[in-house]
Amino acid sequence: MSLKIINLGGVSVQRNMFVYETPDEAIIFDCGIGFPEVSNYGVDILIPDFTYLYQIKDKIKALVLTHGHDDHYSATPFLLQKIPLKIYAHPLVREFLKNKIEDFKDLKDYSFNDIAPGIEFTIGKNFKIIPYRVNHSVPNTLGFYIVTPFGTVVHQSDFKFDFTPVMDKPADVREIASLSKQYKPVLMLSDGLGSTSDGFTETEMKIEETFDSILSSSQGKQVFITTISSNISRIQQAINSAKKFGRKVVISGRSIEQNVEVAVNQGLIKNNEIVVEDFEAKKLPPETLLYILPGTYGQENSGLSRVAEGRHKQIKLKEGAVVIFSGDPIPGMEAPIDTLIEKLVLRGAEVIYSQLQDDLHVSGHGSRGDLALMAHLVSPKYLCPIGSSIKHIRAYRDLMVDSGFNQDQIIELLDTDSMVVSENVVKKGEQYPVKEIYVDNNQTKTLVEDIVIKDRKLMSESGVIFVVIPVRGGKLDTKTNPEIYTRGYIYVKENLSLIKGMKNNVESTIKSFGKDNNDIQQIKKSVEKSLNKHLYKRVGEVPIIVVETIEL
Amino acid sequence: MSLKIINLGGVSVQRNMFVYETPDEAIIFDCGIGFPEVSNYGVDILIPDFTYLYQIKDKIKALVLTHGHDDHYSATPFLLQKIPLKIYAHPLVREFLKNKIEDFKDLKDYSFNDIAPGIEFTIGKNFKIIPYRVNHSVPNTLGFYIVTPFGTVVHQSDFKFDFTPVMDKPADVREIASLSKQYKPVLMLSDGLGSTSDGFTETEMKIEETFDSILSSSQGKQVFITTISSNISRIQQAINSAKKFGRKVVISGRSIEQNVEVAVNQGLIKNNEIVVEDFEAKKLPPETLLYILPGTYGQENSGLSRVAEGRHKQIKLKEGAVVIFSGDPIPGMEAPIDTLIEKLVLRGAEVIYSQLQDDLHVSGHGSRGDLALMAHLVSPKYLCPIGSSIKHIRAYRDLMVDSGFNQDQIIELLDTDSMVVSENVVKKGEQYPVKEIYVDNNQTKTLVEDIVIKDRKLMSESGVIFVVIPVRGGKLDTKTNPEIYTRGYIYVKENLSLIKGMKNNVESTIKSFGKDNNDIQQIKKSVEKSLNKHLYKRVGEVPIIVVETIEL
Repeated sequence: MSLKIINLGGVSVQRNMFVYETPDEAIIFDCGIGFPEVSNYGVDILIPDFTYLYQIKDKIKALVLTHGHDDHYSATPFLLQKIPLKIYAHPLVREFLKNKIEDFKDLKDYSFNDIAPGIEFTIGKNFKIIPYRVNHSVPNTLGFYIVTPFGTVVHQSDFKFDFTPVMDKPADVREIASLSKQYKPVLMLSDGLGSTSDGFTETEMKIEETFDSILSSSQGKQVFITTISSNISRIQQAINSAKKFGRKVVISGRSIEQNVEVAVNQGLIKNNEIVVEDFEAKKLPPETLLYILPGTYGQENSGLSRVAEGRHKQIKLKEGAVVIFSGDPIPGMEAPIDTLIEKLVLRGAEVIYSQLQDDLHVSGHGSRGDLALMAHLVSPKYLCPIGSSIKHIRAYRDLMVDSGFNQDQIIELLDTDSMVVSENVVKKGEQYPVKEIYVDNNQTKTLVEDIVIKDRKLMSESGVIFVVIPVRGGKLDTKTNPEIYTRGYIYVKENLSLIKGMKNNVESTIKSFGKDNNDIQQIKKSVEKSLNKHLYKRVGEVPIIVVETIEL
Repeated sequence: MSLKIINLGGVSVQRNMFVYETPDEAIIFDCGIGFPEVSNYGVDILIPDFTYLYQIKDKIKALVLTHGHDDHYSATPFLLQKIPLKIYAHPLVREFLKNKIEDFKDLKDYSFNDIAPGIEFTIGKNFKIIPYRVNHSVPNTLGFYIVTPFGTVVHQSDFKFDFTPVMDKPADVREIASLSKQYKPVLMLSDGLGSTSDGFTETEMKIEETFDSILSSSQGKQVFITTISSNISRIQQAINSAKKFGRKVVISGRSIEQNVEVAVNQGLIKNNEIVVEDFEAKKLPPETLLYILPGTYGQENSGLSRVAEGRHKQIKLKEGAVVIFSGDPIPGMEAPIDTLIEKLVLRGAEVIYSQLQDDLHVSGHGSRGDLALMAHLVSPKYLCPIGSSIKHIRAYRDLMVDSGFNQDQIIELLDTDSMVVSENVVKKGEQYPVKEIYVDNNQTKTLVEDIVIKDRKLMSESGVIFVVIPVRGGKLDTKTNPEIYTRGYIYVKENLSLIKGMKNNVESTIKSFGKDNNDIQQIKKSVEKSLNKHLYKRVGEVPIIVVETIEL
């Protein structure tokens, strides 16, 4: 008898999803999307691999959401397409999620249960859960003591400590510690992303001073601030700063408008009387406005990108406008941001980004100090870094060893590992392989099979050749010549001799089978093999070769 | 009558190439390769667009190379495939280049002229050139006063000031200033890449202390250092540190071995008696060795990658080995480095990289302090940042304005801009458009046409569909059905109805032309257009559609 903990999002900063499973019940923590790295092969998002959930469908009692970031809750509608769910979430997350759900049709039943720091709740017979407050770059982020018959586990997803937060209260440090005394947790799953950053993550408070200082020297200029749409407190700081300098605020972009509306309804946003609608903004001089827009990652169709390209319907960039990037790039994703910055520069904007100016952004994730403080407040028997890459997992382990834990107390959940909690001991369990699940985030939210992605990758590197062999009544038609079509391999006009060589190769392979051999599958295979060899020898590089037939 | 300055590498940190052209003569500065950003679409390197050079072929008097970095000299053999060249370079660069040239066949004539700091030389009738020493991450990097009848221009490519360099002497600050007094330069083209980095770039000297400190705590462990192969002084520091701790040094990798051999021959490397060959290394305990390997950018087939994947023929990684990354990622290229780090971690190595440890690397490029110092030493009438992105160009302009220059003294060379120097004034000149020239760096060094790259990009995003229409004697064969083949679009097995819909669409388009219409071009166009529309409506996304015929 034991508690299994299974990671269905893979070793990843994003696509967060963990299953806590006892012999008769299971609950899920988080259900987030991910963003493809580097090249996207035409897919916009990644979601966790739900396959295992379908197998234990009847055991699933609930989905608990830790906070309102896309990589923790936005894959929920995809799961709702397949199984009904009871969702436990803070009202802020609930409302964010409701807005996402609107884009989906034919969902199974779902219901919401509100949760809040300090308010204990139980799920099924096995799970007593006590949420507590932590800080992060979205308000009302929670950590959880999960009390089960097999031991108490702390699920501490993304967090930092901020003792002077903008909108939230500081993390419940005293409560976290006293729950530890009471429940003696055997294991904590902890955010490990900041394990390579020294010290403590700085407070959000200081960002407003930066906004103030930029606005004080931007009189007579249009000002734009871009940040991620869930960062309600950053948006509040922009509003506060605008108020001090007598500017009205324009908030533009579907997701950011929705989130601000939710936050206003929940009493989180102050000074929002200076926020004006588009039609009012049009009557005001642009240089008396502060625009808050999405686009901090350089997203192709974001509000700021449209402004930078002169194709935003409501907002025109004026020469000399000040544009503030209040967010950090996801490592490896700098290129689209630089492209956006450069478009703005070329339109005459003065762009302010983190290499030019300090204190434009602070991370939502705790640094080494925060991570160690949390580990010592909770003092579990075992620690397991999550929401991290392998690099951060190893740095977290080494940090905890430096901080007084033993190396065997740190569990590195690699690849497809799971954990088993039983009799106050945590061990690695069975392997739970997960696939990359790609979604084309178009209107139909199509899932794209990974074989298709593999083909796209191969074609992107060296193109494709189609060889079409004529058959008649299922038999080889030797009177008609096979045809070769290519795309993305070589520039046909300049390589007619190469095409000719390919044709000769295919024809001689077919001939070698003799007139009466009609094992079409075998012929197709041989044609591919021989052409592959021919091209490798001649060009040194071979594209995807697809051999097909045409029935005459 | 004027001097034209044309940038053939585009606005780019890499692919450096500038042409200085008078009415009757032209010289070229640098001829470097670039590396593709983000996804590579099967190409390995980019080279400058030589088209304009072919046009002025007979005017070209020489190629001058500033320093021994790939992005400044390694495209030279590609140019030598088309035109003969007199090459002016420091002996170090000459030898580096000779090693590159070995991989190429059928080159035009070329000859080398050695240059050195302080030794004036003339090219043709128009160019008197005075090289001076600067510092950078490869020794013997030069800047140039170019004295012409139309004014003196300073060509100050990549540089920093290092007053305690490892191998070089400090930059010739007094000489740079006195040449300015003598020649009163009208323009300086200056490295601008560090314009977003505060202060002065730190000295290379401190890196050795870092190596020492890591080696002092790595007794009994195998140690690896990876750095870029041209960074001779970094390699020297690794050797020095190994010597202090009684380690022998193994240098492995073609490019790094070649460069070290050149440096040894030129008397640049000391303590090289502790460098051992592979066969000697095999007899020594691995934990008494220091390995110097390429792989600092996570290159797929680099020595360190092969070690990390357990497929290096000579070198086996032992559990607990220490691996030091002494180099910074190119921004936006972090992903492959992280992948390499993670492979090493999974094999049990302790990996030390810049987020974990300070002073593992210093940039080769001057920061804001260096850039301003150079501007004031040279004190030209106009300044033009090069080797930079638009972001850095703008930051350089703003820095120079803060440093006392007027905004109109800074020339922002954007996109396809050129400059014209005449009568002590610099103006922007004609546009010189350059294309992206891609090279498949295989044995044949094939140039890949940009139309092929475009096709690969499109196919990578949504795949390809081939529609094959049967024709007989150039006329539509209505008795045979057209066939549709697809790759990378959808997973065919799960979308039979979609394929069927496509076939119906194609067949009905063909039918609509009537039996006797044999305008095949027109039919092909209509089939494509109609299928495009059909798929857009049904799927919301359309791949490349190629309509071809097969002659029966």
